[in-house]
Amino acid sequence: MYSVHPLRGIPEVRKDDNIAGLIIGALGSAGESLKENDVVVVKQKIVSKAEGRVVRLEGVKPSRRAVRIANDLGKEAQLVELILRESRRIVRMGHGVIITETRHGFVCANAGIDRSNVESGHAALLPLNPDRSARMIRRSLERGVGAKLSVVITDTFGRPWRNGQTDVAIGSSGIEPLQSYRGKVDAYGYTLRVTEPAIVDEIASAAELAMGKLSAVPVAIVKGLKYRRSEMGAKSMIMPREKDLFR
Amino acid sequence: MYSVHPLRGIPEVRKDDNIAGLIIGALGSAGESLKENDVVVVKQKIVSKAEGRVVRLEGVKPSRRAVRIANDLGKEAQLVELILRESRRIVRMGHGVIITETRHGFVCANAGIDRSNVESGHAALLPLNPDRSARMIRRSLERGVGAKLSVVITDTFGRPWRNGQTDVAIGSSGIEPLQSYRGKVDAYGYTLRVTEPAIVDEIASAAELAMGKLSAVPVAIVKGLKYRRSEMGAKSMIMPREKDLFR
Repeated sequence: MYSVHPLRGIPEVRKDDNIAGLIIGALGSAGESLKENDVVVVKQKIVSKAEGRVVRLEGVKPSRRAVRIANDLGKEAQLVELILRESRRIVRMGHGVIITETRHGFVCANAGIDRSNVESGHAALLPLNPDRSARMIRRSLERGVGAKLSVVITDTFGRPWRNGQTDVAIGSSGIEPLQSYRGKVDAYGYTLRVTEPAIVDEIASAAELAMGKLSAVPVAIVKGLKYRRSEMGAKSMIMPREKDLFR
Repeated sequence: MYSVHPLRGIPEVRKDDNIAGLIIGALGSAGESLKENDVVVVKQKIVSKAEGRVVRLEGVKPSRRAVRIANDLGKEAQLVELILRESRRIVRMGHGVIITETRHGFVCANAGIDRSNVESGHAALLPLNPDRSARMIRRSLERGVGAKLSVVITDTFGRPWRNGQTDVAIGSSGIEPLQSYRGKVDAYGYTLRVTEPAIVDEIASAAELAMGKLSAVPVAIVKGLKYRRSEMGAKSMIMPREKDLFR
């Protein structure tokens, strides 16, 4: 059995705020605590805010390419300009959506940039190095509470072929992102070949169910989950180009 | 706060077994119970077994097309024949993988057919109508325990661009599959336009974390989750062709 606890009482996050400090500060009044091996799940938006990754759209000068794409898709040219700057390449465009591969290697709509839950006229970009962000939050939390923890930073991604979105891990620290069953044998003697549950993505989804989108709960704590510790980050979740059938 | 409870003690499932009866029978010795609005998550494999959707590979006669594809990919011709029979079309092939659109409309590897956790020399096909399977299990559980419940039937799907797999919902009953925030306004006055968390897929992933792949735990119970009830099934998760940028 494991449980997922939304952490209420995190204040509005501003540039240079210490996320770990805000989390520890919220524990008491929320009636929560952090214990050995708890997984702290943090929404990307507050990490981006703390790291100053929020941009005023009015100050962005769109290129001619951005203007052309914006006109084609019915989007704002400033937003398209930011999407292009944050991306290595465009994967698909259509239905008002730009799907790109970000500079990190994530494939998602609008390079992960969005305008919800930020000041009007602004947009939040993804953290530059979400695994590093997760590592810094984790270390600071561990020092604060004196226990080994893990941290997962999540964002909301759409997916091909299925409606709606699920939260996935864009950064992690302390937890093995994929649990490989390759070569393991099932109860019938069959050797599993490709089974590798994407643990950090499943944790991201499990946390989203407790946090929701509007309720200003940007942190959840997962307690009682068995997992393997690892220094590997969520960057290892990105499929290498040569295995990708959908480039 | 919500919690996810693996349900231990479900026996080996055979054709014509009553899944709901097996679940109710396992509750007591597992120290678990079913209460109003609990979500019962059931792995596809035991549903397929109960519904007789297990095929002996030796009895399958592969077509010439199946033999050709099998040779190209280094797969068994009988397995490829079953994949083709269960599919409307091939979406991608390569790296030893066939990604197809199943007759239900799911896009996944091998039409969801797999050989793990079934008798040697056999393969399990997906249930013919997983929403109907979920509805039948739900009704039978509700009669048995006298409470309104929901049921989600899950399978393990890979995804483009990211390593590993997550569990998703292939059938559901009693729970709204997608929670739409379209038109809802965030704390900054910004109107959300495309936000629709895929609740049943996130539940599938949350349950997988408690069940694992080898431990013979094909059922989990999710308790304390707030969700909207609905008669709509997980079939509504399938993206309509005209919105699909990745056909």
